[in-house]
Formats: sequence, structure tokens, C-alpha cells
Amino acid sequence: MSHNLLKGKKGIIFGALDEKSIAWKTALRCVEQGAEIVLTNAPIALRMGEINKLAEQCKAPVIPADVTNMDDLKNLFTKSMEHFGGQVDFVLHSVGMSLNVRKGKRYTDLDYDFFHKTLDISALSLHRVLQTAFGLNAISEWGSVVALTYIAAQRVFPDYNDMADAKSLLESITRSFGYQYGIKNKVRINTVSQSPTRTTAGSGVKGFDGFISYAEKMSPLGNASGEQCADYCVTLFSDLTKMVTMQNLFHDGGFSFTGVSAAVVEQMEK
Amino acid sequence: MSHNLLKGKKGIIFGALDEKSIAWKTALRCVEQGAEIVLTNAPIALRMGEINKLAEQCKAPVIPADVTNMDDLKNLFTKSMEHFGGQVDFVLHSVGMSLNVRKGKRYTDLDYDFFHKTLDISALSLHRVLQTAFGLNAISEWGSVVALTYIAAQRVFPDYNDMADAKSLLESITRSFGYQYGIKNKVRINTVSQSPTRTTAGSGVKGFDGFISYAEKMSPLGNASGEQCADYCVTLFSDLTKMVTMQNLFHDGGFSFTGVSAAVVEQMEK
Amino acid sequence: MSHNLLKGKKGIIFGALDEKSIAWKTALRCVEQGAEIVLTNAPIALRMGEINKLAEQCKAPVIPADVTNMDDLKNLFTKSMEHFGGQVDFVLHSVGMSLNVRKGKRYTDLDYDFFHKTLDISALSLHRVLQTAFGLNAISEWGSVVALTYIAAQRVFPDYNDMADAKSLLESITRSFGYQYGIKNKVRINTVSQSPTRTTAGSGVKGFDGFISYAEKMSPLGNASGEQCADYCVTLFSDLTKMVTMQNLFHDGGFSFTGVSAAVVEQMEK
Amino acid sequence: MSHNLLKGKKGIIFGALDEKSIAWKTALRCVEQGAEIVLTNAPIALRMGEINKLAEQCKAPVIPADVTNMDDLKNLFTKSMEHFGGQVDFVLHSVGMSLNVRKGKRYTDLDYDFFHKTLDISALSLHRVLQTAFGLNAISEWGSVVALTYIAAQRVFPDYNDMADAKSLLESITRSFGYQYGIKNKVRINTVSQSPTRTTAGSGVKGFDGFISYAEKMSPLGNASGEQCADYCVTLFSDLTKMVTMQNLFHDGGFSFTGVSAAVVEQMEK
Repeated sequence: MSHNLLKGKKGIIFGALDEKSIAWKTALRCVEQGAEIVLTNAPIALRMGEINKLAEQCKAPVIPADVTNMDDLKNLFTKSMEHFGGQVDFVLHSVGMSLNVRKGKRYTDLDYDFFHKTLDISALSLHRVLQTAFGLNAISEWGSVVALTYIAAQRVFPDYNDMADAKSLLESITRSFGYQYGIKNKVRINTVSQSPTRTTAGSGVKGFDGFISYAEKMSPLGNASGEQCADYCVTLFSDLTKMVTMQNLFHDGGFSFTGVSAAVVEQMEK
Repeated sequence: MSHNLLKGKKGIIFGALDEKSIAWKTALRCVEQGAEIVLTNAPIALRMGEINKLAEQCKAPVIPADVTNMDDLKNLFTKSMEHFGGQVDFVLHSVGMSLNVRKGKRYTDLDYDFFHKTLDISALSLHRVLQTAFGLNAISEWGSVVALTYIAAQRVFPDYNDMADAKSLLESITRSFGYQYGIKNKVRINTVSQSPTRTTAGSGVKGFDGFISYAEKMSPLGNASGEQCADYCVTLFSDLTKMVTMQNLFHDGGFSFTGVSAAVVEQMEK
Repeated sequence: MSHNLLKGKKGIIFGALDEKSIAWKTALRCVEQGAEIVLTNAPIALRMGEINKLAEQCKAPVIPADVTNMDDLKNLFTKSMEHFGGQVDFVLHSVGMSLNVRKGKRYTDLDYDFFHKTLDISALSLHRVLQTAFGLNAISEWGSVVALTYIAAQRVFPDYNDMADAKSLLESITRSFGYQYGIKNKVRINTVSQSPTRTTAGSGVKGFDGFISYAEKMSPLGNASGEQCADYCVTLFSDLTKMVTMQNLFHDGGFSFTGVSAAVVEQMEK
Repeated sequence: MSHNLLKGKKGIIFGALDEKSIAWKTALRCVEQGAEIVLTNAPIALRMGEINKLAEQCKAPVIPADVTNMDDLKNLFTKSMEHFGGQVDFVLHSVGMSLNVRKGKRYTDLDYDFFHKTLDISALSLHRVLQTAFGLNAISEWGSVVALTYIAAQRVFPDYNDMADAKSLLESITRSFGYQYGIKNKVRINTVSQSPTRTTAGSGVKGFDGFISYAEKMSPLGNASGEQCADYCVTLFSDLTKMVTMQNLFHDGGFSFTGVSAAVVEQMEK
């Protein structure tokens, strides 16, 4: 149901690959709530994905950008402001990739070039996006930036590998830049720490199925879906959450503060 | 601006004393967003306050209840369900009081009867509210409970005295009951940790003015106002945040994750 | 092996019930490391326990004290200082009890008199001990106080019931009083959050066996034993940790920062 | 005073530049407590520093190693094991450097090559050390690794710049590798989060003096000294703390859990 919560707002959505992507679902919800958006992703992801379908549904232009390339990002913000006829009000950062995970490297036998790449794509990319926007004064006062993260940033989930470290770094950048951008332009920056979600990207992780059912059993409300995550992002882009910044917000059905659930204890006794 | 975010929802608001109260402002916003509400407070607070004015504005009945009295709470939920013709969808708990603070007792010289009273009124009251609702099955599936808290639960703010300990206890009860009520009826329970706010209750704290200006200088976005807190509570009562539970959510302009600000360092150098 | 780490130091140990008690083991280790100690417990626990055996081994007097009784605590500190011929250098608080747990009350159906008693015995007792010592100036400069706690203070372990809330309160009191006593007399106060341990007190908790094996599987180093906890307390009482205060220190083989272990995932797949 | 706490233990100390270095002081304390050590630092730091003086005092060989070079690290561990005639029992990682800080780049205008370098030297270096040791099985069972960090990893201290993000990453690597190495060889890995300390490295940070006095005013016990940090590291290398792993341990006189102190409020009112 639309509440026109984002009426008149303009946003950029990074990372919509296909229908399963949280970014895809968030794009749809934002438009449903009255926003105009620009879609972006890496050139290679654009080729693989089905983003044109989404672009049509959202009446949104697609502007390719490699998040590790400052010229691409500058072009993205400049073109977006031209398209919108003004500043951007919100940004969703849903970007992450680890070659160490993809190539099956163990955490105790990492390739360091891959590790730097993981950090560059999954964490420094947020800094690059923000530094670009900051330099161009591309985000409006009280604008809102949300990056998606995962609780592996706080506690060890072994199969998450070097992505865990990347998410920690991402959350630190969120705080560090949140301070700077808050003081300068009242822009707020937060991360949403989402339940494990069966996206095309997520599915690559080893043991993902076993893990997703563990998380389901551990969460009093069950795992949060991608649609619900999209709804939550909408509230964070809206004017109702103006004073929330530099936070890591768990959207996980209570997983984060459950030490053990009755369902898990039962399973342990089997 | 109304988005009808709470259309059809029914809620109980504890703790609206006068126009400065966060609960007062939240009541207004909830109604503005389409909710029906019941107002409640302790009999003595009702006599001192101006709640009838608010009740009129909100077209809401006022049902007195002492939060330390289980019969009162049972009556409150029973009458509210009669009034609404069904279950309650949300509850705001904005209740706190310390006789140790009022009587000027230092933290190293507390009166233990007072300390128990602080805990009973400010923290166990939430458990009593929830246990009453749980027993009566008074809260609907995916219902939402929010209690107001303060960062003194995590770090020491000396003048906050035994209220700090009460807030820690309140947040623990939020997690503990959040687990139980989540599993049983998908009810979610969270605390909002708000910037120091110039309410009638808050003003009683010694050195409050000096402290509020420190918090202002330390928060990249400045202190959050009561109105903004009300807005934030609206999002938490809405269907857009269904999977958020057992959390303590800072609504403080970034204070919680600022170690030191440039403005404070400057002041220190004077 | 003795390193004489506590040579010349004098301490009070609360809560040694029998050989399985962490307090019992800590008493032994402290004496082994060169400390002199006083043993104390509630009169009823003294009758049930075998403390005289420990007292003999430690050459320590036993001074009964009900931790909810200020006169008892005053007597304890006064007599201890007489015995030692001077101030106390360290205190171990290992006290906790919940009638709600003992009587099998569920968390959603608590008895509130019991709840207050849980808080009084398990948490306010620390405040009472500290307030008594503070008033008598009974703890020496750079003295060290340690209270035992459990991770249920941070995350929900359903069977831990209202003890979880009591531990949260205990940790808050640790911070609050740690601030005050630090400024006044350089006394430091910390909690140690220990792995689940098979003590006589712990064994009362429902499903304890299933739980202890879950914790074992989740901790990279396995569960910490009572003896190891005693060793850790020795370091905190020593002069090597003078600047550690107001902290909650996990002593749990890594449980606290493990989101899921390979061993648990394996069990989940069964 | 020596307690022979580390008698028979063998360790590697990274990062002793000159007498002010925490690593320098830790080296001395370890030897005082009965340990044998190997000293290491980057070739350039060895040229600038006065490490031979320390080496003499400690009767320790100096083995140069660039922490970003895997061959150097392999050589370091191989030579150290030859020297010791067996495995290493403890490692101190005290390494950090930011070209962005040195070159005066603002956080909103970072150079990304520098940023990667900051991360590589200050955080990935710990992973490289651990991966090298893991591969060579160079650390003994129940061995202990400590890395020095700073609270900017949790909260924003603006002048700390990209080092804050590096410290966050360092702490994440500590948890991630702590899990792996704990399961494999019972090796424990922790960070110590130290008060701001007037070292040669620290002094480079802008506004350091104003900040150090703020921290002093905010810490109930005052700022922890480098010597006290060395003492604390000794306890973590000893057998008395075997079950502590994957933790970030604040050694800061209570700064980390003080929201505001009376001294700071007073200063704010000036």
C-alpha cells in the first residue's frame, strides 16, 4: 500500500541485479511510495542482469558505474542531477563481492590481491560514492544514505570469509563519513543489517542453506524477507527518521539479540 | 503531513503529562497518521497534567492506570479492547521516575527503597504491561511496542543516577520479552534511545542545561526533538518495520557513535 | 604455579558455597598467589555449604553477611579491616538467585515480589557492597572489584529468565559505581562474563545440560572452566590491570563473538 | 616487580620504534617477566629507530620484516623458530600508518591508494602475520596474539581519519582469525584498545594535545600509560587468561563507558 512516503524525493539505487535482489525490491517500493529513481550497477552486472525490465517498471534511467572508478561515479551523480533537475535525496548502496569466496579460498589462506578487491568493491565503494557526492554537493540537506550489511561484521560466521571484514569496514566508513556529512549538510548515513536472504549473490556462499535455516530457527520472528527490507529502507529514506544517523540497524527478526532459541536447543539435543 | 501510515491501527499511549512530553507529541502524530488511541497515565499525573486537552484533540478516552498495579493494567487493556472493539496494535511506554534523583541522593548514597521504586516504575512497569497484555492476548499479531530510553543505559552520565540502571534493566526486559512475545504472537518490542529532551520530567535533573548543550555539540545533526522522536515512533508502529525487534534504536543525531566532535575539542581548548 | 601476583593483597570473597563454586576456586587461587582473604556468604548458605573446609585451607575467617542487609555488610567490612589491619584490596562478588527460576515461573508469568528479590540479591547487592565500602573508605587506592555475570545480559537465553535482567542491572551498576569510585579513590570495578559452568547454583537451570553442550560447540576454545575463571580473576585483582575499569570482560573461549560455528551448522543439518 | 609470569615463553614483538613506543615498553616487561623475545620492524623503521639499544637490553635478535611482504614474514617466523628452538608463544602487533593522515588529507577527500595502504599496513598486516604463522604452524597451542587498537574503531574521533576504519578492520580480522586459529590450535587473538598515548607515531595526529587532555578528563582513572599497557599485555600473554579470545579489551581508565564526566561538563559551562 502506498503512503506516498517518498513523494517528491529522488534517489539512486546501486546493485539491482535481478528480481531477487534487495536493491531491486527497494527500487520498486521507493517508486511505489512516490519517489523518482536512477538505477546503477557495474557494466558487467548490467549485461548479466535484467535491469531493463526494472527500469521500465520504475520509469528510471540506467546509468552504468563501476563503484571502484571515480570518473564513473562523478558521471553518475552529474547525470543523475541533470536527470532530476536537482540534488539527490537518497542513495541505496547494495554492493559486495569477494573473489576469495568465489574462488573457494579459505580464510586462513587468502589471496591478498583478492582481499584488497573485496574491500575496494564492498566497502571503499561506499566511501567513493560519498566522497564523490560530497565534492559535487550532490545530496540534499537531510538526505539519507543506506548501505546493506550483515551481522558477520560483529560476530564470526565462518563461511562469510573476508566479506565479514569488508562489512566491518563498511560500517566504520558509515560512521566516519556520517559524522562529516552530518555536520556539513545534515546528510545521514546508516547501514541496515539484514537477515540472510536468498539472492543470486547470496546463494554463492557455501553452506548457505544450512545457515539460512539456522538463522530462521534463531530469530523469534523468523528471517526478514527482501521485501520487508525494502520497506524498512523506505522508512529510512523518509522524513520520519531524520535524526537517525551513523547507526547499524538490525533488520533480522530479532536474530541479533537472541543468544539461543528454544528451537535451536531442541535441535542440539537430537 | 499525513501519510495514513497508521490507518486502522489502535494504540495505547502511556505517559503524556503535558505538551512537552514526548508521549503527548507521539499521541498527536499517531492520530494524525490515522490511528485511534487510548491515553493512560498514573492517577496523580492525570490530576497534575493537562491530559484532557490532549484527549479532546485526539478524540481519545483516558483510562487511569498505575503501572505498578496489575489490576489497573488489566483494567486498562480490557477497557481498551472494549473501546477499540478488538486487539491493540501498538503501545508506547514513556514512564520513568526516580525518588533518589528527586530527593537529591547521590549515587554513592542511595536509598534502597527508592532504588527499588525507581526500578519498579521505570523498568518493571514495562514487564507488567507486557505480561498483562500477554495474558489477555491483548496485542495483535505483528503488533509493536516501543519504550523510551536513554544512552545512560550504556555509558555513565553521572547526574542520571539510578535512572541509568533502570534504563539498562528496561532494555534487558525489552529483549527478554521481545523474544517471548515474538515467538508467541509475532509481537515486536523495541526501545528508542532519544537525545536529552527538555520535558517537564527531564528538567528535574541537575545540570540538565549544561548537559543538553554538550549533547548538542557532540551530535553531528544536533539533538533530536520530541516531535522528531514522535515521527520515529510512528515508523516503528507502522507495517514497514515488521522485522525489527529486541533492538535499542538510537534517535540522537549521531551522538551515540561520536567519540568526540570538533566543537567539543574546541571548547576543551578554551 | 604461584607467581606471588597478589602478594600482600587482602580480599573479600563472596559466594563460595562448595567445591564447584567459582568463588571457592578463586579463593584458593588468590591465596596461592599470596593474598590473604576473608570469606563471606549468607547465613543460610554457610549452613548448607562446606565453607569451613575452604576456610581452613585458606586460613581465612568466615564472616556471615546477608547481601541485602546493610548492617551485615557494614559489619563485614569493619571486621575485615580489623582482621587485615587495614583496607581491603579486592572483592569478588559471586552472588545470584532467582525464586522465579527456582519455582519454575515462566518469564511471561513472573511473580513481581520474586522479581524484586532476584534484582535485590543478584544486582543491588553489588551496589550495597560498594556503597558500604565507599562510606567506610574500606577499599584501598587502585583496589579491584570483580562481579561474575553472564552473556544473557546482552542476548536472550530463554531459560535464564529474570536472572538475565538482573545481570544487565548488575553490569550497569558496575559502570555507574565504577565511574564514582574511580574518580574518588581510583578503585576499579569490572564484571567477568563467564562460560556456563556446572556449579551447584547453575545446575538448577532447566535444560542446562543441552545448553552447556551448545556453548561448548559454539566456542572456538570450548567452555572456560571455573579454575580458568579463577585465574582470570587473579589477573584482574593484580597490579598489572590497573587501568581496566567499568568493563564487562568475556571469559568464554570466544563464544561471545562467534555467530555460528562449523560444529553447530553441522548439528543443524542432522 | 617480576613474577616470572612469562617464564619459558617465547615471543615476537612488532613495532618498537623508540623508547616511547608501547611495543618497546612491552618488550621490556616481557623480558622482565621471564620471556625470550625476537624484535622486528620494517627496515625503514629500524634505520630510523634506536632498536639496537632495546635489543641489547632484551638480549634479543632483530629480524627485519615489512609486514606487507609475505616472504619477509615467512623469514621472520622461520628464523624466530630457529632462534627459539621451537614454536612462538606470543606475538605483539603494534603497527599502523596512514599516508592520508601524514599528508594532511581530509576524510572527505582521501586518496584511495593511500587508503589501501593504510589498510594494508595497519590491518591486513595482522592477517598476513597470522596466515604466515598458521601455514608454518609457528604458534604453540594456547599461544596468544595481541594487536593494539583504538576506540575510534567504535566511535568517531574526526582527526583519526582513515586509521579509524583500519582499526575497525583490524578488530574484525582479530575475530575472524581468532575463530579459525582457536579451533585449529587453541591460539587466542585479542586487541587491546589503549588510551591515547604520546608516542612518536601518535604525536603526528593533528590536535593530539587537546584530545589527550579531553580523554584524561573523561576517564575516571585518567589515561592509561604505555607502561600500564605493557603490563596488561603481559597478563594476556600469560597462562592466566587462556580462555579470553576474539575480544576487544579496553585499557583506558574507563573512558569507553563514560558518556560524560563531571570534569567535562564543568569545562563545557565555561
